[in-house]
Amino acid sequence: MKLYYLPGACQIGIHALLAEIGRPFKIEQAARPDTPEFEAYTQINPKGKVPALIRDDGSLLTEFPVIALYLARINPERELIPTDVEGEIRVLEMTEYLVSTVHMQGYTRARRPGKFTPNESDHEAVKAQGLKIFQAGLDRAEQQIGGKEWLFDKMSIADFALFYLEHWCVLNGIGTLGPRCQAHHDRLWSKVEIRHAVESELIA
Amino acid sequence: MKLYYLPGACQIGIHALLAEIGRPFKIEQAARPDTPEFEAYTQINPKGKVPALIRDDGSLLTEFPVIALYLARINPERELIPTDVEGEIRVLEMTEYLVSTVHMQGYTRARRPGKFTPNESDHEAVKAQGLKIFQAGLDRAEQQIGGKEWLFDKMSIADFALFYLEHWCVLNGIGTLGPRCQAHHDRLWSKVEIRHAVESELIA
Ligand SMILES: N[C@@H](CCC(=O)N[C@@H](CS)C(=O)NCC(=O)O)C(=O)O
Ligand SMILES: N[C@@H](CCC(=O)N[C@@H](CS)C(=O)NCC(=O)O)C(=O)O
Repeated sequence: MKLYYLPGACQIGIHALLAEIGRPFKIEQAARPDTPEFEAYTQINPKGKVPALIRDDGSLLTEFPVIALYLARINPERELIPTDVEGEIRVLEMTEYLVSTVHMQGYTRARRPGKFTPNESDHEAVKAQGLKIFQAGLDRAEQQIGGKEWLFDKMSIADFALFYLEHWCVLNGIGTLGPRCQAHHDRLWSKVEIRHAVESELIA
Repeated sequence: MKLYYLPGACQIGIHALLAEIGRPFKIEQAARPDTPEFEAYTQINPKGKVPALIRDDGSLLTEFPVIALYLARINPERELIPTDVEGEIRVLEMTEYLVSTVHMQGYTRARRPGKFTPNESDHEAVKAQGLKIFQAGLDRAEQQIGGKEWLFDKMSIADFALFYLEHWCVLNGIGTLGPRCQAHHDRLWSKVEIRHAVESELIA
């Protein structure tokens, strides 16, 4: 299995999940749209995005929530997705919200306002709108963790979606983590396999 | 079960799916952020969005792909989601892409550029960027339908994500449907239960 990445981008959540599962995998750097290497990357992943997973049969799988679910499905002994409908649905609902709203509508506005508006004089307004969506997501996660260690009763794929958002918050100072999210982040970050995996993106 | 809707918004995909499944359900109008009724709606759905499903036990379920999966799970005899991992993952990958990228990154830019940029003079640029993402999604769907009737070997929840995008295209003239997507749209639209459901939003 091979994970395509852009250093520090959202695939760190999948990278951390692969490290936690502990089966062998490779990583390879993808390319950004504005580089000469991008054309070649779209031959591998026509969507041009990360995360992209090349599976052992050579086939491509995309979309963060779906790659995460796939890894949970093929490693059922790790119980990263509940087997009852209610449990499954709630984990997927949280994962979906974190990726498609908190990240793609919130964080991306706050971090890359140029993707939303061409006009630099509007960047502050777009960033402020994004920060509101991003912080609302962190606050919702803070509340949901409550007195638990994880978003749900046990560690699930949703925790790895939350992890990359928390990690971005810690690294880039966008948004504020409450104490439970900070502890949640540190709980994963303190696992040496996860830390090594995420850090390896920056030195590869 | 009760579905909250905004007339003609993306929940028409869920509404059509409920009609296709054919078990009794109710609908109720949600509220837009800029209206006096919005505050009351956030008491029901704190995210303030549609679709929102109130289940028979009174609990709330949100996020289009997850509501669709839930409806497939509780109506297994309809076989709207494959039971093998590979089939399941591919249907979810397409659903995710259609909702979180083609709709939320593409169509929304093309239809509501003001959500992306505050500056009216930039609206044309944002619309053009959105149309590119939206049309790429329709083209990808066109190719995937191929010689089949549906996106996959049989009707699945992904077809109901595609349906609302196709319906928006037909109604609002944003993007262009290829012949297979047009036939795919018409195949669902020609079902009287689905047409009545979607049309009922406009007269309720
Ligand atoms: N819907 C995709 C979105 C992933 C996404 O937005 N990835 C960003 C990195 S965090 C990316 O590839 N950015 C490069 C680009 O947008 O061109 C998913 O869930 O995987
Ligand atoms: N991530 C949500 C997004 C749904 C969404 O964007 N819904 C739109 C209607 S098509 C909405 O609620 N718009 C009202 C608003 O954004 O305030 C989902 O998948 O359900």
